[in-house]
Amino acid sequence: MVKIGILGYGNLGRGVEAAIKKNDDMELVAVYTRRDPASLTIKTEGVAVKSTADLDTGKEDIDVLIICGGSATDLPEMTPKYAAMYNVIDSFDTHAKVPVHFANVDEASKKAGKVGIISCGWDPGMFSINRVYAHAVLPDGKDYTFWGKGVSQGHSDAVRRIEGVLDARQYTVPVPAALDAVRNGENPELSTRQKHTRECFVVAEEGADLARIENEIKTMPNYFADYDTTVNFISAEEMKAEHSGLPHGGSVIYSGESSDGTKHVIEYSLKLDSNPEFTGSVLAAYARAAARLNSEGVSGAKTVFDIAPAYLCAQSGEELRAHLL
Amino acid sequence: MVKIGILGYGNLGRGVEAAIKKNDDMELVAVYTRRDPASLTIKTEGVAVKSTADLDTGKEDIDVLIICGGSATDLPEMTPKYAAMYNVIDSFDTHAKVPVHFANVDEASKKAGKVGIISCGWDPGMFSINRVYAHAVLPDGKDYTFWGKGVSQGHSDAVRRIEGVLDARQYTVPVPAALDAVRNGENPELSTRQKHTRECFVVAEEGADLARIENEIKTMPNYFADYDTTVNFISAEEMKAEHSGLPHGGSVIYSGESSDGTKHVIEYSLKLDSNPEFTGSVLAAYARAAARLNSEGVSGAKTVFDIAPAYLCAQSGEELRAHLL
Repeated sequence: MVKIGILGYGNLGRGVEAAIKKNDDMELVAVYTRRDPASLTIKTEGVAVKSTADLDTGKEDIDVLIICGGSATDLPEMTPKYAAMYNVIDSFDTHAKVPVHFANVDEASKKAGKVGIISCGWDPGMFSINRVYAHAVLPDGKDYTFWGKGVSQGHSDAVRRIEGVLDARQYTVPVPAALDAVRNGENPELSTRQKHTRECFVVAEEGADLARIENEIKTMPNYFADYDTTVNFISAEEMKAEHSGLPHGGSVIYSGESSDGTKHVIEYSLKLDSNPEFTGSVLAAYARAAARLNSEGVSGAKTVFDIAPAYLCAQSGEELRAHLL
Repeated sequence: MVKIGILGYGNLGRGVEAAIKKNDDMELVAVYTRRDPASLTIKTEGVAVKSTADLDTGKEDIDVLIICGGSATDLPEMTPKYAAMYNVIDSFDTHAKVPVHFANVDEASKKAGKVGIISCGWDPGMFSINRVYAHAVLPDGKDYTFWGKGVSQGHSDAVRRIEGVLDARQYTVPVPAALDAVRNGENPELSTRQKHTRECFVVAEEGADLARIENEIKTMPNYFADYDTTVNFISAEEMKAEHSGLPHGGSVIYSGESSDGTKHVIEYSLKLDSNPEFTGSVLAAYARAAARLNSEGVSGAKTVFDIAPAYLCAQSGEELRAHLL
């Protein structure tokens, strides 16, 4: 059994908890929280909720710690810290800061003789793997990543911060014409605006200036200004009934040539009912890999690029070759 | 530079040759043939065509030998034989005989301190990888593989062996309703007939009994009897104009749950202008991996399951993390 600890019990932590239940060779040992452990009730019966103070002793009996924190401030601090004590894994997704994060985790985990896997999920994660395989097989080509249709939590949060907004949900939607052109192997040059549109559902305070809110959303730098955005004002009831899930997905499409004029299109796509549950499922599979690699004497920081597919599976090499090759 | 030898110069050997030209860090050293080398002209200028007798010395200056033979009789003999002398790679695709082939290659390559990668291509190969990743991430689910629309060379050959047939091309076509049901996450039980249809284009001898030919095709055991097959008789000119390519492709679709009722659909699909060129491209990428693994002291038989994505790439870990993660 792979003994798992989960650090943080938000959407992602609960997604990992669900994933562990689907893996017969994994056992959830404890959920660790910075809050008062007594304030937290988890879904898995008989499993302890503990304080991060327990974790900080470095003596918890876990094979892998799955760190479910935010990339902005939590993970840059937490992952190297706990990599010095445990095999760890996170879903760090601030692309520009990956080199620093990787180096920090690498140093800590190597010193400790542990494995630290960073940036695990679907993007970065499964999408990254597919970009790499495609580039490796067809070096003369181009990759495109489309996200959605799905809920962007960062963009939803940004809308919620606008004055007069009670609640908001933002969907990222790929532009069908762009998808078609890429799937046809046309290798188009696409601007940000040509690739995705943004669709907002907003619950406003009674009497709020809706035109101002709509304008503030549509002109918000970085988040919306470069996109065609639609804003729909709805009731709190409709928000709850129609937009309470966190579906997501998208496609990595690669178009390349093996010789002049001989084209190939590779597409990897995901349709996810729940972004955090799928991300949690990827983390669980890589937690198995972390435990196995470390038991073979491997240490240091790794990404999905560094780990052979067989390490993610409970089955033996013989079983995989017999049933899935 | 990775120094490559190609054994066999049919469609697949030429596909590998094309792939090597697309990889700046690879060099084609020689093409080896069982025929008279003088009878063979290859596309790469300045590269030697040699006899397999040269290869049999075990002294050829190559990093990896890519063995482009048939799975029925060539590879079971050739791959273990040359694994005892060189790093080797093949596209062995007789599923039932993989365990024996793997064991034979493993024994020979371990003794020689070499790496032998078997069953590389797109199925087995890229499709297998995607089955494994999907099962690992969502253990509670089901995989479906659809092939086509594309040319099956085995089925085309089977039709050509019928009396009165001058030439034939067989396309395997997935059934759209089956694809839709799987993409919708319905996890249907599908019979062979429900998954694929077969479409034949046949050039018959003048005066041949077309009804007999059509009947012989449609009732042929293993190849056609279990499918809905259509037969179209065409002229030799039309065959040449419309059916001279070897396009193929297909999809691996996986549908699974992360918790009760929370569904996810993963799809990996290929649209290939040329089956042998794409297969050759996969072989080239894994040849790079074979050379690199062996330079690190690894030996023995491997499949795509055992090799981390980064090993396929010319780029460093830093470059991959910076640009593709």
